[in-house]
Amino acid sequence: MTELLTFGETMLRLSPPRGQRLEAVREFEVVVGGAESNVATAAAQLGHDVRWVSRLPDSPLGRRVIRELRSNDVTTEIVWDDRHRLGTYYLEHGSDPRPVNVVYDRADSAFTHISEADLPIGTIEAADVVHTSGITPGLSDVTAEVTETLLETASDSSAAVSFDLNYRSKLWDREAARDTFESLFEHVDLLFAPERDVSDVLGIDEAPEKQAVRLADGYDVETVVITLGSEGALALQDGEIHRQSAIETETFDAIGTGDAFVGGFLAEHLAGSGIGRRLAYGAATAALKRTIGGDAALITPDEVAAIVNDATEEISR
Amino acid sequence: MTELLTFGETMLRLSPPRGQRLEAVREFEVVVGGAESNVATAAAQLGHDVRWVSRLPDSPLGRRVIRELRSNDVTTEIVWDDRHRLGTYYLEHGSDPRPVNVVYDRADSAFTHISEADLPIGTIEAADVVHTSGITPGLSDVTAEVTETLLETASDSSAAVSFDLNYRSKLWDREAARDTFESLFEHVDLLFAPERDVSDVLGIDEAPEKQAVRLADGYDVETVVITLGSEGALALQDGEIHRQSAIETETFDAIGTGDAFVGGFLAEHLAGSGIGRRLAYGAATAALKRTIGGDAALITPDEVAAIVNDATEEISR
Amino acid sequence: MTELLTFGETMLRLSPPRGQRLEAVREFEVVVGGAESNVATAAAQLGHDVRWVSRLPDSPLGRRVIRELRSNDVTTEIVWDDRHRLGTYYLEHGSDPRPVNVVYDRADSAFTHISEADLPIGTIEAADVVHTSGITPGLSDVTAEVTETLLETASDSSAAVSFDLNYRSKLWDREAARDTFESLFEHVDLLFAPERDVSDVLGIDEAPEKQAVRLADGYDVETVVITLGSEGALALQDGEIHRQSAIETETFDAIGTGDAFVGGFLAEHLAGSGIGRRLAYGAATAALKRTIGGDAALITPDEVAAIVNDATEEISR
Amino acid sequence: MTELLTFGETMLRLSPPRGQRLEAVREFEVVVGGAESNVATAAAQLGHDVRWVSRLPDSPLGRRVIRELRSNDVTTEIVWDDRHRLGTYYLEHGSDPRPVNVVYDRADSAFTHISEADLPIGTIEAADVVHTSGITPGLSDVTAEVTETLLETASDSSAAVSFDLNYRSKLWDREAARDTFESLFEHVDLLFAPERDVSDVLGIDEAPEKQAVRLADGYDVETVVITLGSEGALALQDGEIHRQSAIETETFDAIGTGDAFVGGFLAEHLAGSGIGRRLAYGAATAALKRTIGGDAALITPDEVAAIVNDATEEISR
Amino acid sequence: MTELLTFGETMLRLSPPRGQRLEAVREFEVVVGGAESNVATAAAQLGHDVRWVSRLPDSPLGRRVIRELRSNDVTTEIVWDDRHRLGTYYLEHGSDPRPVNVVYDRADSAFTHISEADLPIGTIEAADVVHTSGITPGLSDVTAEVTETLLETASDSSAAVSFDLNYRSKLWDREAARDTFESLFEHVDLLFAPERDVSDVLGIDEAPEKQAVRLADGYDVETVVITLGSEGALALQDGEIHRQSAIETETFDAIGTGDAFVGGFLAEHLAGSGIGRRLAYGAATAALKRTIGGDAALITPDEVAAIVNDATEEISR
Amino acid sequence: MTELLTFGETMLRLSPPRGQRLEAVREFEVVVGGAESNVATAAAQLGHDVRWVSRLPDSPLGRRVIRELRSNDVTTEIVWDDRHRLGTYYLEHGSDPRPVNVVYDRADSAFTHISEADLPIGTIEAADVVHTSGITPGLSDVTAEVTETLLETASDSSAAVSFDLNYRSKLWDREAARDTFESLFEHVDLLFAPERDVSDVLGIDEAPEKQAVRLADGYDVETVVITLGSEGALALQDGEIHRQSAIETETFDAIGTGDAFVGGFLAEHLAGSGIGRRLAYGAATAALKRTIGGDAALITPDEVAAIVNDATEEISR
Repeated sequence: MTELLTFGETMLRLSPPRGQRLEAVREFEVVVGGAESNVATAAAQLGHDVRWVSRLPDSPLGRRVIRELRSNDVTTEIVWDDRHRLGTYYLEHGSDPRPVNVVYDRADSAFTHISEADLPIGTIEAADVVHTSGITPGLSDVTAEVTETLLETASDSSAAVSFDLNYRSKLWDREAARDTFESLFEHVDLLFAPERDVSDVLGIDEAPEKQAVRLADGYDVETVVITLGSEGALALQDGEIHRQSAIETETFDAIGTGDAFVGGFLAEHLAGSGIGRRLAYGAATAALKRTIGGDAALITPDEVAAIVNDATEEISR
Repeated sequence: MTELLTFGETMLRLSPPRGQRLEAVREFEVVVGGAESNVATAAAQLGHDVRWVSRLPDSPLGRRVIRELRSNDVTTEIVWDDRHRLGTYYLEHGSDPRPVNVVYDRADSAFTHISEADLPIGTIEAADVVHTSGITPGLSDVTAEVTETLLETASDSSAAVSFDLNYRSKLWDREAARDTFESLFEHVDLLFAPERDVSDVLGIDEAPEKQAVRLADGYDVETVVITLGSEGALALQDGEIHRQSAIETETFDAIGTGDAFVGGFLAEHLAGSGIGRRLAYGAATAALKRTIGGDAALITPDEVAAIVNDATEEISR
Repeated sequence: MTELLTFGETMLRLSPPRGQRLEAVREFEVVVGGAESNVATAAAQLGHDVRWVSRLPDSPLGRRVIRELRSNDVTTEIVWDDRHRLGTYYLEHGSDPRPVNVVYDRADSAFTHISEADLPIGTIEAADVVHTSGITPGLSDVTAEVTETLLETASDSSAAVSFDLNYRSKLWDREAARDTFESLFEHVDLLFAPERDVSDVLGIDEAPEKQAVRLADGYDVETVVITLGSEGALALQDGEIHRQSAIETETFDAIGTGDAFVGGFLAEHLAGSGIGRRLAYGAATAALKRTIGGDAALITPDEVAAIVNDATEEISR
Repeated sequence: MTELLTFGETMLRLSPPRGQRLEAVREFEVVVGGAESNVATAAAQLGHDVRWVSRLPDSPLGRRVIRELRSNDVTTEIVWDDRHRLGTYYLEHGSDPRPVNVVYDRADSAFTHISEADLPIGTIEAADVVHTSGITPGLSDVTAEVTETLLETASDSSAAVSFDLNYRSKLWDREAARDTFESLFEHVDLLFAPERDVSDVLGIDEAPEKQAVRLADGYDVETVVITLGSEGALALQDGEIHRQSAIETETFDAIGTGDAFVGGFLAEHLAGSGIGRRLAYGAATAALKRTIGGDAALITPDEVAAIVNDATEEISR
Repeated sequence: MTELLTFGETMLRLSPPRGQRLEAVREFEVVVGGAESNVATAAAQLGHDVRWVSRLPDSPLGRRVIRELRSNDVTTEIVWDDRHRLGTYYLEHGSDPRPVNVVYDRADSAFTHISEADLPIGTIEAADVVHTSGITPGLSDVTAEVTETLLETASDSSAAVSFDLNYRSKLWDREAARDTFESLFEHVDLLFAPERDVSDVLGIDEAPEKQAVRLADGYDVETVVITLGSEGALALQDGEIHRQSAIETETFDAIGTGDAFVGGFLAEHLAGSGIGRRLAYGAATAALKRTIGGDAALITPDEVAAIVNDATEEISR
Repeated sequence: MTELLTFGETMLRLSPPRGQRLEAVREFEVVVGGAESNVATAAAQLGHDVRWVSRLPDSPLGRRVIRELRSNDVTTEIVWDDRHRLGTYYLEHGSDPRPVNVVYDRADSAFTHISEADLPIGTIEAADVVHTSGITPGLSDVTAEVTETLLETASDSSAAVSFDLNYRSKLWDREAARDTFESLFEHVDLLFAPERDVSDVLGIDEAPEKQAVRLADGYDVETVVITLGSEGALALQDGEIHRQSAIETETFDAIGTGDAFVGGFLAEHLAGSGIGRRLAYGAATAALKRTIGGDAALITPDEVAAIVNDATEEISR
């Protein structure tokens, strides 16, 4: 009875108070974050039945991760690993002209040792939507293989397969990522990709509308969403382009914005809404996320609906 | 020897750190707040002899309230109640497009059980100005009656009666509020009202200048101040309209802005200043309040005067 | 597939930092606590399938409660109430000779408005053990009736009924409590009761062994556990007395000790262990709880087992 | 209508979190403290009408001091100084075998510039008890003179004069202190003195009972209280010795214990109680103080009475 | 082997959390700050060998200062004083229209008792650049004399002498400052001065370019930098004017901006860069400083270079 | 001119507030810790010229480590690694019967990739004492080899070689440790070893006096110190046994106690003191450490001397 199943690594996120440098840090605020569990949280907060599949160290730190996800109403299905570590990442908040600084410390984490045997095949086949991101295959050779198996399994069942490109230059180079992405696209039904990555990684250096068409046609993807940062997003479905502007925010914490967008979009996909409404919910969930500390979009359906309605009214005036 | 006596309920205010959702709160910052004690604080900080009359639970929480007000230099005159609770309110700070969220938990508080016998008649009669707000009669049938008695008593003595409309839709509906307000107006000398409430609650859907005239004439109110949010305020006195623009601020905490305005205005009223200066002090006190955490305007006469002078200079250049 | 179902009210617990008086509080640490959800947490942490049934306000504060319980691995089954409040309690930590001070603010909470229709009959009937405490019937006339229905329903099914006396003098007087307790005992299979309450409330002013016999015989209770504070506990089952000494602790937070004892005991009951082992697990879980901040026993099966084994070894040396 | 008037310097107290060294401090907890205002607070909390007379800088820091004292229900009568500083002291909490470390930074404070003209003669003459400590004359030549005038004035009126020896070796040497103390004793009715100071500073190296007799006879002091640390205290009045044992505590913050003792004692003096009860209230107030962070005894009459009754019961058993 | 030697007073800086008034402060954040040690930190963080010479109390507070400077990679050369205090300053963060409020408490600090004998002559003579500011001679008659000796000594050796005007009206009046400054200028090679001080204190009320020329010519100063606040800065060297615009920032803490500018400038001076690059590094270091809490510019060479390059690119586009 | 050179890994230490479980952690206190840098800190605080040699990631986290050590007055000589991570460890404070819980996350740290080429041979040869611990060779094959080279180099120069056994079962098994330790002993002049490790790891299951003799004779070690936990320590030198009792403490943070002992001992070794005084300083430094948060002994020579003198006086009475 899982509506959305997401698969990926989640880390401990450690951040100093605002205005304090990492090299002088005295105390860390601790939350958990990972692209796919962030998506899971957003969709679960919006009322869907969501399951996150992963591998974690059998330690208080591994339990720390699932405690937070369970409180977000995400069901967790975990393979416990008693030999490897929990990935962590350090986040130093920025302030113009000083950018946010992220220091990853995720090498050799329990998740990078996941195996095909760890995949809950039955659960995957029974899901309505299966989602992962381009970070997952980039973590290790093993995760690349397991990702392929996951998408294949989902694709062979009735599940819709959702994939967020999420290219991370600190993990792998563009060529390796491109090869892997292209081999995965055949299983994908819903593709989310930032304009810049489509251009830089996939080599499609065109206007976003053209990018969407090239991706949809080239890889037979049903729905392509190109995200445009402060310009919003656009989607191609059934040969038609749909545009969504971004919502202005007083940003408190920008980490997880893209994941919130995907989570909001998928929530409306599960609700059976049309593409316009899916985009609107994605944008509203992303905007709310930016006002909240941590990776996760702790929002309610009412709050998102209110933003969507406000934005709609503004347009109709 | 009381210059200003205010009457109303004060609550414990509990707010999570910025960026933290109420549903995930781990720690609350604690202050006290209430419309009429906020007014009292602003006027006391500006150097006046101010007394706040109320009913509180005879508990550490009731004492928490008076400890803070005494430190603000407000004299407290309390009826102690050993059966009922202290009202509280939860405040979640907002960030665009997420609004501030206030959750009231004030039902059945000690204050709602106040009785006419609790009113210190002698003290009321000896005050220069007696102030309460539209929240007070909206709390319970009992408080509505006691409010009427208070205003009558003050009106029958030499005290000037000040009333801030402060309609709260979470407390009562518009019709009930309108009836009550209209019956109280006859005792009122100084009326503060937001443009929107005059329109929505009192049904006077006109330009603010007209609203002021209608209120002054209709209820024989000596001075009517219509507050206009970011547009400032205007006052009608002796048939003349006086305008005050709002002062731009980098807002830290907007709660209590309106009360600070009233407190600043009344302080200059007590000082015998003209209407223009009263409005200017109201606006400056309100602006300073917005830069300070908590409900209360912890300001000094010098700080307010500096803002007033700056604003004046700007205009005169 | 619920092993343990608990039923009762859970509140927000607000406590100032150590050494700070409630009447001067500037910040509250926030956790949630309630006798029956505390029991649920302890048993869930020990690996059992536990469900907590309750009624909560449909607000961020109600959601705050279930977020914490879900993170403790407790399944929540909630009736959402959109009219009433969340109970809270204020906890001031003590330090000899100053006692812990608890100020309850739970009157008229959503839970006190629970109705029989809110009980999930099927779930109750399918549980292995159904547990509540003497606080629940003491909250309102309604909760007293619903408690009776709950215990009857459970008793009529195959569920074992567990009841912790938990008399609270701030809720009701001894006579009322006694009458209610006595009418509930007929449904009870497992009774936990502090020696003092058996004496003061039930009027059985005898040695604890005798108290156990009187309760077991008088009300046909299968297992009676008399708790003795720093003297540990004793249990009567099948006519035999079993003793358990308390484990010495460096106490950090004593709130919830008794609930942890019940949770540890019930966990071993569910595991099919004998009475001696149940008592040992109760005592060890309680001891660990005292070292942890908050109401809840965030412990692991290994940690509890280690204490049990240490204590056993000590005896055997 | 002042029952107790105290006179002395109050400082800002800055202390690092426990376990953090002063030389590595990152944040200070801030309270205010001063021997005489500590006494004032204890007596005010016990329900008496108390006034504290002092001189403070006309700055936010000076106002910081009176805000805290007013919240403690102490009336403040301040001469504002626009040229000198606020005294501060740094307090590093200790832990055996590392002692508490106090670093004073009080030289040249506004208080050390007080003058006789600053004394509110009328208020002093109208007080029931006037209290200061041996710290006050030790701060500067000026404060020594003003102290003498204060005690003379009080002594010449109907006020009882209370004096706590409080020798501080960091302020002056023993000879200077002895000379000053001896010249002040003629005005004193109630003398509090630690056994060690009587021996080391006043040169009376005898058993405490003898010390009391020597002081009472030698300086014609009506009541002499010799404090004995963990041994409690003894008092000599009307030729009779009364003993009071100390109450065992789990100490959170020992600073201000002696002042709380004096405040509790004087509160019962004002209440007209006998010497035994005054000593008992002193000891109970002191014990409670040790459980509370900061210099001030934030206690209630009921809490102190409960300790006194407990201690009494223990003895009577 | 010292590249930069700076000389001056450093204080403990105590600031309440944002939004909290100094008069209601409950906790202070603690850092250290002083114009010359701030300059030292910026240059040391940029990779230079920097030494700070000063006088401090021989106490945990004096050690607090050097602990922080050593962690910033500044070598400290301290004369320890066992009689005088550490200067402190209180900083209340502002928010428009409420300005930052600084309360100095630095009178009679150990530094004001420095003597010529305390100067490490050999170290001074061996430094490449010797820097102090106009605050130092303003602290006491003694510091004025020692400053003159310092500059003379440096000037007579091969060291370049750098001086930042830094007029503080709370320390001395304009006439005294002017006389002292003018007598020091003869030793100065690099002069930093805010446009306003050149006008108000030195009496050169002209356009900044003219001010630079007047200073360079009048006092034979090799390089004159006039700082213009949000307008950036300009420098005169070899008869040519060089301009530097300010970099826009989202400011977290503006204290120390000017010192960071000087530190960045001197770092490039030591690196042998031309005047344009020195100005650019000054501006970038200053901009980064504004995003960081505390007085000190905890930055890296790479971060500063990135800002410089960004700014350059912007211009070249 | 280095008196003491220590070599080893230092990690970031992350600990939740007391009473908070690691699996529910919301904020970490951050300090740095490592056996050999802890020893370095203690000796540096006691006034010696101390250098710590290590390898760290070239990142803000690596700089975090040296910032703290420099503030402790330790000179750092670092090889910067731009590919590997910083080791971390998680510390959950305990409370009886719940033990302290340490979770290491140090695998594959920059330090484990140190090479012989990284050793500063000249600096090592010029040191008076070279110290490392049994943790260092246990980290990786590479560190085992480098440790051997370090001790050989030191041994071949005039440096005294100090070695603290410090067996960590989480790093390697006893057999591997024993073989490595035994091969290192030939270079060692000063050996510190806990009684239990000598028994369990080295297989010398005898009374501590015998253990010392066996080690001294078997491996030709000049001075052997056997540490006995709460029983203190004993040393064998020149064939004579010297005993030192432990000093009772109110423990705040026990981590680093053993390192503080070694640091205190070595400080007196460097001062040329006899074996009794070295032991006494070791014990006093260790006792003070236990009262201070973090791994490091932030103490002063005077504080240690006071404890030593107190302990001596106690004995001599």
